[in-house]
Amino acid sequence: MEKREGEAEPEQKEEEEQVVNPWMVSAKGGGKIDYDKLIDQFGCQRIDQSLVDRIHRLTGRPPHVFLRRGVFFAHRDLNEILDAYERGDKFYLYTGRGPSSEALHLGHLIPFMFTKYLQEVFKVPLVVQLTDDEKCMWKNLTVEESQRLARENAKDIIACGFDISKTFIFSDFDFVGGAFYKNMVKVGKCVTYNKVVGIFGFTGEDHIGKVSFPPVQAVPSFPSSFPHLFPGQDNLRCLIPCAIDQDPYFRMTRDVAPRIGYHKPALIESSFFPALQGETGKMSASDPNSAIYVTDSAKEIKNKINRYAFSGGQDSVEKHRELGANLEVDIPFKYLSFFLDDDDKLEEIQKEYGSGRMLTGEVKQLLVEVLTEMVERHRRARAAVTDEMVDAFMAVRPLPNMFI
Amino acid sequence: MEKREGEAEPEQKEEEEQVVNPWMVSAKGGGKIDYDKLIDQFGCQRIDQSLVDRIHRLTGRPPHVFLRRGVFFAHRDLNEILDAYERGDKFYLYTGRGPSSEALHLGHLIPFMFTKYLQEVFKVPLVVQLTDDEKCMWKNLTVEESQRLARENAKDIIACGFDISKTFIFSDFDFVGGAFYKNMVKVGKCVTYNKVVGIFGFTGEDHIGKVSFPPVQAVPSFPSSFPHLFPGQDNLRCLIPCAIDQDPYFRMTRDVAPRIGYHKPALIESSFFPALQGETGKMSASDPNSAIYVTDSAKEIKNKINRYAFSGGQDSVEKHRELGANLEVDIPFKYLSFFLDDDDKLEEIQKEYGSGRMLTGEVKQLLVEVLTEMVERHRRARAAVTDEMVDAFMAVRPLPNMFI
Repeated sequence: MEKREGEAEPEQKEEEEQVVNPWMVSAKGGGKIDYDKLIDQFGCQRIDQSLVDRIHRLTGRPPHVFLRRGVFFAHRDLNEILDAYERGDKFYLYTGRGPSSEALHLGHLIPFMFTKYLQEVFKVPLVVQLTDDEKCMWKNLTVEESQRLARENAKDIIACGFDISKTFIFSDFDFVGGAFYKNMVKVGKCVTYNKVVGIFGFTGEDHIGKVSFPPVQAVPSFPSSFPHLFPGQDNLRCLIPCAIDQDPYFRMTRDVAPRIGYHKPALIESSFFPALQGETGKMSASDPNSAIYVTDSAKEIKNKINRYAFSGGQDSVEKHRELGANLEVDIPFKYLSFFLDDDDKLEEIQKEYGSGRMLTGEVKQLLVEVLTEMVERHRRARAAVTDEMVDAFMAVRPLPNMFI
Repeated sequence: MEKREGEAEPEQKEEEEQVVNPWMVSAKGGGKIDYDKLIDQFGCQRIDQSLVDRIHRLTGRPPHVFLRRGVFFAHRDLNEILDAYERGDKFYLYTGRGPSSEALHLGHLIPFMFTKYLQEVFKVPLVVQLTDDEKCMWKNLTVEESQRLARENAKDIIACGFDISKTFIFSDFDFVGGAFYKNMVKVGKCVTYNKVVGIFGFTGEDHIGKVSFPPVQAVPSFPSSFPHLFPGQDNLRCLIPCAIDQDPYFRMTRDVAPRIGYHKPALIESSFFPALQGETGKMSASDPNSAIYVTDSAKEIKNKINRYAFSGGQDSVEKHRELGANLEVDIPFKYLSFFLDDDDKLEEIQKEYGSGRMLTGEVKQLLVEVLTEMVERHRRARAAVTDEMVDAFMAVRPLPNMFI
């Protein structure tokens, strides 16, 4: 599972159609990703208000800000998961991370913050796959370094507040084998090389480790891959919260699932978190100023926002008062729409800033406050995560109270 | 690991060069395999008399009949293994079987009979890989059926007399994972898709399970894949006794080994055991009369040899007395050269039968005796193999006395 933020491949195709796959996200002509087109192209569904309302009604809790604001904007079979839930059937959540770097940025946290909400409101178990094998292959890390990063990233994931009685985090290097490997073989049998070339764009010069990987990311979608968690519950449904660049893996998985006797996993998919430089920029691991990291100090956050966050405000105060900010491209507003939970406040900013009564500096100031508090909270939570806790989350063990 | 006997792919290419790979063995124009050419093509070495003598000298034991008669006829780096052994360094043996059928025929036993000899005379540990994952994929068996066949085949392997204190038999479905999987990823990273196409002839319509498999068969060549057996012994050398159709896997493995910090495995490779119908015939799972099975009764053996074993004798007794038998194509003589241990006796037959003084019927009679006794002995040994013994051989456990 590769989060695309900051990790898009360098060989971006110029002047071509937009490309979104687990290793490359590139918009047409360097512009913004056309999400409507992506939904069309991938064949998933848009999450509409009635679906958000249904989640509200079923959980009895206000929908997460990422749902209310359309950060998670697309899905596959989410209604079937909710139907099952309404009938009293349970499901489980599956998400993951490719541990390619030590320090996570805010974009990396989004799926985990949202998954934590889903776990909390639906009271369901969660499996988190750390694809250290993938990173070892794609980023040419050593096995040891990939596994070290997996554990480091597990601390950040745990810091998001997951319930240890309902959460199993695993490293592929540690966990692949047994029932999991059997499912990998079952999936592998159903997918031709030509098919993965079509889905993932592999070439003949790609190594076979890459060709072998898609089944690894596919099989956590099947409960039988976790015999310690879901023995005899092959009918349990799976819901996968992820960024939409992961859709190719799960299109493949959904295609295969019925042929090997499993439910298709359902998906709930997010858009991409933009770089500080704007939606057309890319967060880049080689440019630390393109993103806010969870390790950034208050001073760094303030500095990055003030210096680099692309503003949709006008060049002069006079012009700004007259025309207002262009919220479509304004990064401080965009970031607030992800992380400012207060709907009234956000609406007020939208009105005031959009009309020019509020200045970029004021919005940036608010964003600095919101992010500093969030990052500070994360840092405290992460510092409290001990190695023993990581071991406990990653222990292969039954979770007897996972549905309570 | 696929033994080719009786399992060559149906799409044999006509009028083309000979093709030898793990799934197809076909000679040029339907004739005999040209082993000299194969050695050239594969880049391995012929086992010459001095090498056989060296093994004799080092082990202090008469070389196995398969060595004396050139059944195991090719090698890679066997001298390096012997150098190491002479220095007092140890090595381990690795062989395997693809469990695609319940009943083994004589050809299937050959590598195991030879490996048992190697284990005995060199006093070294052995790992036996049962590639149930491969068979599940190539033969479209279910996971369960592949694993059942793996256990059944394990009984036949154990019946060959391996020393339980030096032998670890494993099913891929059970054992892939951990250190073994890490090595699979390391190997996968070093091999491009184009490379495996060149080696194995995969096409775009082959499923990715097949493309993923070569690393599975590669990594038992590395001691670190067995941390319960060889902890901290990453320098231990590996010798692989196998039929020469497996060479492609290990060419690939040898190519990769130094790049990931391991010794290249050494190989000792056998020719193919011919079908009853002759060297140009094929043992076919769909034609039980093409091979002697270890489950055949004495009556079946007698009947098959008498009716189907291709004779190099002449059409009439008179002509036979005059011209003698053509031993080049005579299957009874060929089979005896595999399984009649007595060199003097074989030489006598060669002289008498070749000159026409001995008749086909007499040679067949002797072969029936030899095979009946061998099959009977195997059947008794196999009947004595309990499920507990299979469990014991397959238990993931240290082997403290494996080098004694």
